[in-house]
Amino acid sequence: MSSSLLRDRPATTNEMLAVFDDASTLHHALAFESALAQAQADAQVIDAPSAQAITTACDAFTTDISSFAEAVALAGTLAIPLLQALRARLTSTAAANLHRGATSQDLSDSVLMLQMKEASALLAAEHARLVTALTMSAKRFAALPAVGRTLLQDARPIGFGLRIAQWALGIREAAVHLERTISAHANVQLGGAAGTRADMLGRGSVVAAGLAQRLQLNRSAPWHARRGGIAAMAASLGVCIGALGKMARDISLLAQKHIGEAFEPLVEGRGGSSAMPHKRNPTGCQVALSAATRAPGLVATVLAGLPCELERGLGGWQAEGPVLAELCLLAAGSAHAMADAAQGLVVMDDAIARNLAQANIGDDIGESRQIIEEILGPPREVH
Amino acid sequence: MSSSLLRDRPATTNEMLAVFDDASTLHHALAFESALAQAQADAQVIDAPSAQAITTACDAFTTDISSFAEAVALAGTLAIPLLQALRARLTSTAAANLHRGATSQDLSDSVLMLQMKEASALLAAEHARLVTALTMSAKRFAALPAVGRTLLQDARPIGFGLRIAQWALGIREAAVHLERTISAHANVQLGGAAGTRADMLGRGSVVAAGLAQRLQLNRSAPWHARRGGIAAMAASLGVCIGALGKMARDISLLAQKHIGEAFEPLVEGRGGSSAMPHKRNPTGCQVALSAATRAPGLVATVLAGLPCELERGLGGWQAEGPVLAELCLLAAGSAHAMADAAQGLVVMDDAIARNLAQANIGDDIGESRQIIEEILGPPREVH
Amino acid sequence: MSSSLLRDRPATTNEMLAVFDDASTLHHALAFESALAQAQADAQVIDAPSAQAITTACDAFTTDISSFAEAVALAGTLAIPLLQALRARLTSTAAANLHRGATSQDLSDSVLMLQMKEASALLAAEHARLVTALTMSAKRFAALPAVGRTLLQDARPIGFGLRIAQWALGIREAAVHLERTISAHANVQLGGAAGTRADMLGRGSVVAAGLAQRLQLNRSAPWHARRGGIAAMAASLGVCIGALGKMARDISLLAQKHIGEAFEPLVEGRGGSSAMPHKRNPTGCQVALSAATRAPGLVATVLAGLPCELERGLGGWQAEGPVLAELCLLAAGSAHAMADAAQGLVVMDDAIARNLAQANIGDDIGESRQIIEEILGPPREVH
Amino acid sequence: MSSSLLRDRPATTNEMLAVFDDASTLHHALAFESALAQAQADAQVIDAPSAQAITTACDAFTTDISSFAEAVALAGTLAIPLLQALRARLTSTAAANLHRGATSQDLSDSVLMLQMKEASALLAAEHARLVTALTMSAKRFAALPAVGRTLLQDARPIGFGLRIAQWALGIREAAVHLERTISAHANVQLGGAAGTRADMLGRGSVVAAGLAQRLQLNRSAPWHARRGGIAAMAASLGVCIGALGKMARDISLLAQKHIGEAFEPLVEGRGGSSAMPHKRNPTGCQVALSAATRAPGLVATVLAGLPCELERGLGGWQAEGPVLAELCLLAAGSAHAMADAAQGLVVMDDAIARNLAQANIGDDIGESRQIIEEILGPPREVH
Repeated sequence: MSSSLLRDRPATTNEMLAVFDDASTLHHALAFESALAQAQADAQVIDAPSAQAITTACDAFTTDISSFAEAVALAGTLAIPLLQALRARLTSTAAANLHRGATSQDLSDSVLMLQMKEASALLAAEHARLVTALTMSAKRFAALPAVGRTLLQDARPIGFGLRIAQWALGIREAAVHLERTISAHANVQLGGAAGTRADMLGRGSVVAAGLAQRLQLNRSAPWHARRGGIAAMAASLGVCIGALGKMARDISLLAQKHIGEAFEPLVEGRGGSSAMPHKRNPTGCQVALSAATRAPGLVATVLAGLPCELERGLGGWQAEGPVLAELCLLAAGSAHAMADAAQGLVVMDDAIARNLAQANIGDDIGESRQIIEEILGPPREVH
Repeated sequence: MSSSLLRDRPATTNEMLAVFDDASTLHHALAFESALAQAQADAQVIDAPSAQAITTACDAFTTDISSFAEAVALAGTLAIPLLQALRARLTSTAAANLHRGATSQDLSDSVLMLQMKEASALLAAEHARLVTALTMSAKRFAALPAVGRTLLQDARPIGFGLRIAQWALGIREAAVHLERTISAHANVQLGGAAGTRADMLGRGSVVAAGLAQRLQLNRSAPWHARRGGIAAMAASLGVCIGALGKMARDISLLAQKHIGEAFEPLVEGRGGSSAMPHKRNPTGCQVALSAATRAPGLVATVLAGLPCELERGLGGWQAEGPVLAELCLLAAGSAHAMADAAQGLVVMDDAIARNLAQANIGDDIGESRQIIEEILGPPREVH
Repeated sequence: MSSSLLRDRPATTNEMLAVFDDASTLHHALAFESALAQAQADAQVIDAPSAQAITTACDAFTTDISSFAEAVALAGTLAIPLLQALRARLTSTAAANLHRGATSQDLSDSVLMLQMKEASALLAAEHARLVTALTMSAKRFAALPAVGRTLLQDARPIGFGLRIAQWALGIREAAVHLERTISAHANVQLGGAAGTRADMLGRGSVVAAGLAQRLQLNRSAPWHARRGGIAAMAASLGVCIGALGKMARDISLLAQKHIGEAFEPLVEGRGGSSAMPHKRNPTGCQVALSAATRAPGLVATVLAGLPCELERGLGGWQAEGPVLAELCLLAAGSAHAMADAAQGLVVMDDAIARNLAQANIGDDIGESRQIIEEILGPPREVH
Repeated sequence: MSSSLLRDRPATTNEMLAVFDDASTLHHALAFESALAQAQADAQVIDAPSAQAITTACDAFTTDISSFAEAVALAGTLAIPLLQALRARLTSTAAANLHRGATSQDLSDSVLMLQMKEASALLAAEHARLVTALTMSAKRFAALPAVGRTLLQDARPIGFGLRIAQWALGIREAAVHLERTISAHANVQLGGAAGTRADMLGRGSVVAAGLAQRLQLNRSAPWHARRGGIAAMAASLGVCIGALGKMARDISLLAQKHIGEAFEPLVEGRGGSSAMPHKRNPTGCQVALSAATRAPGLVATVLAGLPCELERGLGGWQAEGPVLAELCLLAAGSAHAMADAAQGLVVMDDAIARNLAQANIGDDIGESRQIIEEILGPPREVH
């Protein structure tokens, strides 16, 4: 079976790879069909024994991923081969009640939302680790006079901690917004063939609510062709990756030989050079900057899919799943690398002092400390 | 003087062009310098007569835009030639107090935020007009059975109004989010040379608050190199333009000869063909779809600038102003075109009925009406 | 081990997945180290027994991909753990001669170029199949009068084959350009630590030439930080995917129920609907349109990496490998889907005639036939 | 009249603004109608007196741009109000022969191609100036040992001129490719309403050839919906802007205070700071890096328009004109800034020597000189 770890793994974490891997996708797909049947039994849209049989079949389902993926690629949708395989394991009554009133996109969108929630939790943990570490550093170095640099030229002194506090605020704002965005838009999808919830005995709204509750997704009107929530998630990931990239950009500039004011921590086996054994490359920054290079185009892709056709688009929304997954993978790799960098950040007081003296710009750090306090205070509400 | 109306005007409105034209930029730049001086006089950072002289000079300032733009291009910043010209009109004391403790980016960012607020107000008015019209149409055609189409194939019947309600909700959500985003991030910029508010006698924070109040911008810590708010604005504009593009896509598909279910209104002089006088082109949809084609790349540009260098970046943030302006121009053109289309939307009951009959899919519109009610109800809080 | 077939496979072919999978990457990496040693032995930079030992070690090398990928992710480069593993299998003399004068990027860029050449060959075959089929159809339907449609409105009659010929020309031009671009820029990379070919006894240029010959790549000056060739490849892939998307767009519009003029072929198990068993979705078009939605952002990513830092950038070029791979995967999926569509294209003469009659625009197809002949003639030289 | 010089001018040159301004667009549009009439008279499609009257009317045409732009925006196309205005100045016979067999897009595409050729000539001149200056510098500093830097870390020595030679080669390759691409795709557009050249008495091909010759554009089959050439132009501009951005990135890094190895020249009035009069900002680099930030999204926009609908798309191609114009504007601003930087490049031998000594990496510049010779030799053919 084709593997692509050498291509994927350097940019992300194993935990995030697991959120979007085949096992997870299949797991959530089965959970959707099972929960749908249970919600429909609760609403008396289908009979309870059918629901039980469906849940049992979903729980027990296994398949060979390689051949299953072939079938999915042929069909053009995950639902078709999955339902076919499940129906083969059910009596005809239960088979007829499987996926009742639902459409392929109900399944794939709901699965994607479940994965986005898992991704959000992973990212939130990394962001918390990162912001905590940066906050401590910002306070510690609040009043350390250092050269402030604008347009890559020496400008005026700053408190070194102000720079770190600005990283912290940028990342915290982006992280808070990301979490809220995913939480606000992690909506259940259940609209059926044309988004009208037909074929559910007029109780489609009740079924959708029950399904949402069982999957712990938000209740929502069908959104097959209304993709603003998806786009908002993508944009929030893009802003987050950009804020992490900002921190990486700065560290990589500070770590230049002739500046030497800060470094990401030395990690055994990391940052080596195949040509120069003594060299220490800013590998964490590389991960974050590479992610920041890739994210904007991915966000643009999701935005480009918004003007989709009528009740379900052709091509646009099918691009969203892999692209959102990629954004989450990049966000995780970047957040992990920068959290490590924040926790082990090496600040060189001597170099900072030497550079400041050479810059001949005095040591007036203005109101750096007050601004840091303002920045590290409780977050202002932003939407 | 070089003009580019043939290139710019078809994509936008005159009102939005005016928000970002030279006169507006200069007006806001002068308002910034004037308000800064007044806020500094209030905080006793500069003397009152200097402030008064500065305000008087700003109020009276005129210039030849062509030669002024040359000076701006040469200097690489608006502030330098503006300050030079103002100082030539001031006594040496007042001249020394002009722009006290401020930096070029304080000026340009604050000006941009003032323009974004004006843009937001213009867009809000168009969105309100648009959503009101769509809401009425959605209710009117709620129960009219029509062919629902997925992947560009006939699928199952829908209430025709459900399609319109989905447009309305997508646009309303995007519009609400846009307004909140601009409002939340329209922050005053006042950090000085390196973002520390030096040179203001330790009262920079008070000055910044006073400046914010006078300009009706939000108070904020300096954000020279923390551009998440700008990126959030860009992304919100992109989602908005996408939601409008979705409506345009649908109308253009419904207006196809052999479908003929809905049209944008006939406007004298609009949509003609130079080759076929009888032809009626969907020109409003063209405007909105063209905007939707251009927006994603512009949003990506702003995201790409996030990892800027240290206390003020080189190249990235300087790209933001023109790109945000362009997004606002496109948003206005699109919203205006779609508001006109919504108000004059032509729905062809006969064609809808004929197509449905030919599709041979019955007329069960499922829970279309209930979903419309849910959609048109009060908006759920989203962030 | 994490697998992502459900995410990757629907968008591409197994053949192209194999070009960029772990086995292929490792295979080419070993081929690089082996060929480098041989070229250096030829140039008497290292001794022949070392070269032989290195080649033997490379030929025999196997590893567990999962743990190897972990080491690669930690190191931030493929070269470090690969060289470490190979050196453990060599005598100290041979180990010292392994990767002599080379740097990590020499390895990774050369591997990528080898993969691009394989990708190019796969794509060329699909494009040939596609253009051949379209050419036949274009001739067959050259004079069949059909409604020409502009801005999604009926316009004037065309020969139906003219539309197909335009697809063929767009794809052929893009395919020719892609092949030339990859061929022109598939350059060997060998510059060493700073791109100067130090440590090769002044014979680096000879070694580079020998390495190029053994790997069948072009000779070239080092291009560690000169990425225009990579960007040109990405752009060519983007144009190709766009030209395929154009064909898919048209087929999907022609296949609408009320137009019904052309369809992609019916394939057993393809295009079904989980909600409507009778429905036949344009799944091939979906693949091609989804690819066309994703490609522009990926091309933009590669362009964004061009302004890389000094002798080797940080973050930008590291993003290129996965992004070029993704572009190739999408190009393959799209080309395969459209080649199938071209070979099995279903053209409905009856519907075409009926629609034309209803359009009431006569049947003058102008110079459609002459234009088709011009289009299908020998390609004009384009760069 | 709305002016936007403060927004546009800093990013570009007045010469390039003139290529795409209203006067130029109108001039070329009139030239198209005039040349079309003459070519049709030559081919006896219209009578000679009509052609003469049309040419006379075009030569004499003037209009108020503001109100004309309003009419263009209303109509959704330049052709409609232009033809209306011209017809009002013609006898009925000549009026009927104006724009004979042509469509709006024939006009707008041909105008755009005329502008692209003008843009190409302007850019070629700047690129020649730039490459000449870089070539001289590269030779001059070929053997000056300097620190080579990879991943922003000191690596191994290079000849300082090698870095400059790499800039030169990257820009030269991009410039050559740009010129060839525009030349190869600057095709006349003449297809008429549906791209069949109807209404020209079967002599449309002759007319198109005559029109091409008169406008000095390439002969071509109609390409209303085959936009690969446009996309190739956009991509070439993007690569060019990226290569210029690479040079700017490097200069800005070298100009950092603690590195201080090279600077863009000091220009009176350029690069000042409103907060720090002593500061010298890399304003030319800022222009080029800002352009490089904006170009990728614009290229993506053009690629996104490729899958346009049937015989003429809706929204996609209408986005191309402004976007190509913007790419040309950015390319001109960037090339001009970097040509100035190349001609006045300040290289600091002392700092270079000091940094190298501090790096403690010896002074072996490997084969820098040979590689420079290879690079500065005659260009290899690339497509």
